[in-house]
Amino acid sequence: MGRHFLQIPGPTNVPDRVLRAIAQPTIDHRGPAFAALATELLERLQAVFQTGSHVVVYPSSGTGAWEAALVNTLSPGDKVVAFETGHFSSLWCEMAARLGLVVDVVPGDWRHGADPDALAGRLTPDVAAVMVVHNETSTGVRSRIPEIRAAIDRAGHPALLLVDTISSLGSIDYRHDEWGVDVTVGCSQKGLMLPPGIGFNAVSAKALAHRGRLPRSYWDWEPIIAANRQGFFPYTPPTNLLYGLREALIMLAEEGLDAVFARHDRHAEATRRAVRGWGLEVLCADDREHSSALTAVLMPDGHDADAVRRLILERYDMSLGTGLGRLAGRVFRIGHLGHFNDLMLAGTLSGVEMGLSASGVPIKEGGTRAALAYLESAE
Amino acid sequence: MGRHFLQIPGPTNVPDRVLRAIAQPTIDHRGPAFAALATELLERLQAVFQTGSHVVVYPSSGTGAWEAALVNTLSPGDKVVAFETGHFSSLWCEMAARLGLVVDVVPGDWRHGADPDALAGRLTPDVAAVMVVHNETSTGVRSRIPEIRAAIDRAGHPALLLVDTISSLGSIDYRHDEWGVDVTVGCSQKGLMLPPGIGFNAVSAKALAHRGRLPRSYWDWEPIIAANRQGFFPYTPPTNLLYGLREALIMLAEEGLDAVFARHDRHAEATRRAVRGWGLEVLCADDREHSSALTAVLMPDGHDADAVRRLILERYDMSLGTGLGRLAGRVFRIGHLGHFNDLMLAGTLSGVEMGLSASGVPIKEGGTRAALAYLESAE
Amino acid sequence: MGRHFLQIPGPTNVPDRVLRAIAQPTIDHRGPAFAALATELLERLQAVFQTGSHVVVYPSSGTGAWEAALVNTLSPGDKVVAFETGHFSSLWCEMAARLGLVVDVVPGDWRHGADPDALAGRLTPDVAAVMVVHNETSTGVRSRIPEIRAAIDRAGHPALLLVDTISSLGSIDYRHDEWGVDVTVGCSQKGLMLPPGIGFNAVSAKALAHRGRLPRSYWDWEPIIAANRQGFFPYTPPTNLLYGLREALIMLAEEGLDAVFARHDRHAEATRRAVRGWGLEVLCADDREHSSALTAVLMPDGHDADAVRRLILERYDMSLGTGLGRLAGRVFRIGHLGHFNDLMLAGTLSGVEMGLSASGVPIKEGGTRAALAYLESAE
Amino acid sequence: MGRHFLQIPGPTNVPDRVLRAIAQPTIDHRGPAFAALATELLERLQAVFQTGSHVVVYPSSGTGAWEAALVNTLSPGDKVVAFETGHFSSLWCEMAARLGLVVDVVPGDWRHGADPDALAGRLTPDVAAVMVVHNETSTGVRSRIPEIRAAIDRAGHPALLLVDTISSLGSIDYRHDEWGVDVTVGCSQKGLMLPPGIGFNAVSAKALAHRGRLPRSYWDWEPIIAANRQGFFPYTPPTNLLYGLREALIMLAEEGLDAVFARHDRHAEATRRAVRGWGLEVLCADDREHSSALTAVLMPDGHDADAVRRLILERYDMSLGTGLGRLAGRVFRIGHLGHFNDLMLAGTLSGVEMGLSASGVPIKEGGTRAALAYLESAE
Repeated sequence: MGRHFLQIPGPTNVPDRVLRAIAQPTIDHRGPAFAALATELLERLQAVFQTGSHVVVYPSSGTGAWEAALVNTLSPGDKVVAFETGHFSSLWCEMAARLGLVVDVVPGDWRHGADPDALAGRLTPDVAAVMVVHNETSTGVRSRIPEIRAAIDRAGHPALLLVDTISSLGSIDYRHDEWGVDVTVGCSQKGLMLPPGIGFNAVSAKALAHRGRLPRSYWDWEPIIAANRQGFFPYTPPTNLLYGLREALIMLAEEGLDAVFARHDRHAEATRRAVRGWGLEVLCADDREHSSALTAVLMPDGHDADAVRRLILERYDMSLGTGLGRLAGRVFRIGHLGHFNDLMLAGTLSGVEMGLSASGVPIKEGGTRAALAYLESAE
Repeated sequence: MGRHFLQIPGPTNVPDRVLRAIAQPTIDHRGPAFAALATELLERLQAVFQTGSHVVVYPSSGTGAWEAALVNTLSPGDKVVAFETGHFSSLWCEMAARLGLVVDVVPGDWRHGADPDALAGRLTPDVAAVMVVHNETSTGVRSRIPEIRAAIDRAGHPALLLVDTISSLGSIDYRHDEWGVDVTVGCSQKGLMLPPGIGFNAVSAKALAHRGRLPRSYWDWEPIIAANRQGFFPYTPPTNLLYGLREALIMLAEEGLDAVFARHDRHAEATRRAVRGWGLEVLCADDREHSSALTAVLMPDGHDADAVRRLILERYDMSLGTGLGRLAGRVFRIGHLGHFNDLMLAGTLSGVEMGLSASGVPIKEGGTRAALAYLESAE
Repeated sequence: MGRHFLQIPGPTNVPDRVLRAIAQPTIDHRGPAFAALATELLERLQAVFQTGSHVVVYPSSGTGAWEAALVNTLSPGDKVVAFETGHFSSLWCEMAARLGLVVDVVPGDWRHGADPDALAGRLTPDVAAVMVVHNETSTGVRSRIPEIRAAIDRAGHPALLLVDTISSLGSIDYRHDEWGVDVTVGCSQKGLMLPPGIGFNAVSAKALAHRGRLPRSYWDWEPIIAANRQGFFPYTPPTNLLYGLREALIMLAEEGLDAVFARHDRHAEATRRAVRGWGLEVLCADDREHSSALTAVLMPDGHDADAVRRLILERYDMSLGTGLGRLAGRVFRIGHLGHFNDLMLAGTLSGVEMGLSASGVPIKEGGTRAALAYLESAE
Repeated sequence: MGRHFLQIPGPTNVPDRVLRAIAQPTIDHRGPAFAALATELLERLQAVFQTGSHVVVYPSSGTGAWEAALVNTLSPGDKVVAFETGHFSSLWCEMAARLGLVVDVVPGDWRHGADPDALAGRLTPDVAAVMVVHNETSTGVRSRIPEIRAAIDRAGHPALLLVDTISSLGSIDYRHDEWGVDVTVGCSQKGLMLPPGIGFNAVSAKALAHRGRLPRSYWDWEPIIAANRQGFFPYTPPTNLLYGLREALIMLAEEGLDAVFARHDRHAEATRRAVRGWGLEVLCADDREHSSALTAVLMPDGHDADAVRRLILERYDMSLGTGLGRLAGRVFRIGHLGHFNDLMLAGTLSGVEMGLSASGVPIKEGGTRAALAYLESAE
């Protein structure tokens, strides 16, 4: 009984208003009502990506949008420099390699964001693109994209900048145009508060001009952008999810993007205060790089994060994020993004506190209390 | 953004599963599919009222079911003994008087339940019925129905026992048959986790035999019970709310009534610990009579409960119950009934704590913490 | 598979847009969001009743609103003149008698509307009210309310005029103010395209001034009208159905009431052409009185209307209205009101045609074809 | 007002039961509840594909599933023989060419299915695969897959058989195993009665063993099949659409696949009788190859199909399929698949008849009547 707390860092709690929108009857994707919907969506999406460029919409997961970013811009054997900031950046690298690219991985410790200084020396003439994850969902570390851009510019290098904003879009300030990003990869089920099933590419003019020779068909931007001009798609779009997208974009506009970002910042700071109040460590090691969408919590030695998560799921009906890849068992992740407010955060942190305690993890009292004190003070 | 916390003592948070059930297309209320639905419902309702008697279902609010209980059993000028336990018992008395009954009100201080001993001397031969509210929604005080029944029986008096279980049904143990109740009045929007719009009368054989002469038509049990035998109603039933009722009754059966009651008891005890932890007073003054559905909290002198409620609504998007009648401004009420769980309670209490503090009400720290400690210990 | 055709004369096919509105989470009925909703609704309702007077909203079926009209205005022993136009007018008479009124029934043959001339001689000084059903749902005959009003006025009699518009409101032109009606009785599940569960009384100033002495509490207009001023109700309103009401009233406003009425007129004429095309007889015997909401079809002798209905339900998944009271077995009723359009009508009439034929009822070919020809010509 | 008739050959009318299922809250795609859902789905899907092999589920449109079929099995420069049966088979050919395959197109006249005899002489040793569309959505022509399989077998050729069953799956009998298909391509928004957003590949053991060297990552079967063993996916699955898929598969199982196919056959035959009754020509020229999912209707010379479609959309709120590619303006397509029944078909054909007539297309009377006569006789 009672509502499930879906506090993984995505999919996030979908507003019932969005769920009802998705339940509208499917319509003809070649008719005038659909064209009006698509045209409105494409415009509203630009605001969220903070871009004047086209946003390509795919029936796909975010992983598909990763692939789209690569196959549209690169050619077989192209070299890309990719920052390893966690599990998802590593998966993107693996994908690039599987697609026939040569990946120069900038190694990382999974506790810091992409290091802009590390580009020096790597931006050889054969580099076609730089790949960065803005908000690494596996670690709760945010990379400083403008500094990456600046480092490329300083080197006077023409490399394309490809950025994954899967778990930051609509939660953390992200500026496709101002930051000089060439392809931004996004998806529906995080800050956009939708179920999974839509992937996005925001595409700069430079990226559009720079078409690679990797084979592509489904992901090809050109026929999509061409058909979008009349409000259509070259193949059947995910109509019902698009209904939800419209509703979610209206909700974000109603709150205002700045207020959305401030809300996420505030909840993230409160969460970190709770973690430290329990005497535990936040995974992110650089104060400039905390994610406002999720917080990864390091477990004390000898305690299994997944055992805690299981107990919390069974006893308190809350889902938390597991430790991925090399962090398996060592961290759990608290998602505090999307359709979220103070009392949901209070319930979330209370559940974590009770779950840690019930699991025998040695924590100090007062973590949740510290978070609430911050929330109250930072009204 | 985020979910509203509807923590008034009803209407309660409707499970989305019930909301979806309600959204099914309306069907012919004279067709075979409807008959099957109604037949199932009437059976499932008996389990919740813990009765083998008929449960009459009205398209009405609970107030309508109050009226039904009176006009079916009583005659103009009949005398009824009614316990004043709070605002709603008083409204029921007013209704009885408006309908032409003579009401002998047993006065109360709104901090105690109905006093079984007070019946002595009042059960004169002309008394036709005794009216009690099982769980007084305005005060959070529960009356001990079996002791009222015993007092009537001790007096050897034939008075009918009419009980309002509006805010206890499906939340607090209530036994129509075992407790010898003649008419039980219930409704949809509290422990049954539905939107408002359905009223109930559970009717003993004695009540059915004892028909009064008050004019009645809409509320008349007889044509309803007769039509129910084939699964129909004499006038159009609230089909879509009945869809939701079916889903809610299935949910209660899935959890098991005993588990439902234990959950409410546990949340109520946790809430009282929070209130006392804040240094505030619970309105209910008798430990045998605490409501497990809601808790009314007394404000310290000089502090307006409604100002606190307003602040909490604006800042934390949580609705709390107002003080009613003579308690206006002096109490607020926390609903912890229906579709509810530990983390929702944690969010609720956190919101109350932050709201009291932000309103300048002098509270001690640690109320919410005490509640969580109890929840954890009482797993 | 496929959609059910709910072609009884109410409940009608609820638009999915209304069903989704109903599925919104229930809110605090004493909070500001509710007050805004109620205030908007009360205003929008006036447009549909074509009145500047107050519309009282009940959690009830239409039958409850019948009772409300009587108990608010009349006193025990009052005499009322009531037109028998069919099954529902008879039920209303029975209710009046049960409530202690003296009913002077103007008999009718169930094939004509209320006869204005029949009032002559009946409007004795002791008559308190005249009761008429505007659109008799059991017969598909519409009474001419303005002529009834004129007859009362000609007699210079002060009787209140009480009109049931249960199956005409929102489908057939109805003017509470212009026609001088004192109490109009309506409900949700017909032309208003909602599930059942809401009853209405539109109340003239004269009716408000003329309060009767019948006992009343739940139905009492005064506390409701008083509470409505702030956007509230004296007892819990049916919040979720009110969400749907808002959506349905918006839909009616979007189409425009005149267009709504014209649509119903057109579908009704098409249906009558189909009936006559099959060589069958429409029950309504006066061309001035055809209902635009439903059509009752007389069966040839020796053929059971309910057997045809059963076959159509089983084979074509369409519900038609049964013959009620003295018409049982002799007529079936086709509802063509509410959320309805040309192709739904085409499906409906095709189903009736196939069902009659498959039941061995001797019909001529071409009924449906005649209806479509009319639809096409009357575009 | 009234329901829209979505009679394009997909997306089809989504049952409200499926829409409500889709509106359930999104859950953790790595948790136990999701694993149970996925495991159930994968099993139920096998029944619909009539296969014991694995069915791979993609967050994608059907076009994505086309790409998946190619990139998993083929290598750059591989030769494929592909039958041109209409617009969609041509698009699939174009895709194959764009992905670097050499496509040997067997030309067709868009009025016949794939000709098994045409394979003779084309099955050279370098052919890696044969591509056929089972039910060509642009023409309403069904290809005889078992005869294609037999022709390959007769030639003793090892080519893989890749079949598009996008608009036949769940509507027209299709047997992945018995017909010896290696990769079947399907999607959600046609016979499966879902919104668009899910693509399928049913994969034979031979296809699994025969992995090509085309670059692939998102579409790669192997990690998906591996993760599916535990009920998970390597990247975020389209959870809410999967809720709908479960409901739709339950509905198909409830009706029984044989009954589903028979229903489609019956509606298709009725539609063809209507078309011929109007004196118009069905596009499909071979009686063995009529599609039971849709019917393409040839317009008389000098009449524009799209003008008729526009009029029907505006006047009767029905969407019909446009003529695609070389058939633009010359045909319109009636979808009669998915969640559909006799009265919906009656409404559909009535709308077409009225629309043709109102557009000035010379038709004979009696088309719809002939369809209804067939429906009645073929009960």
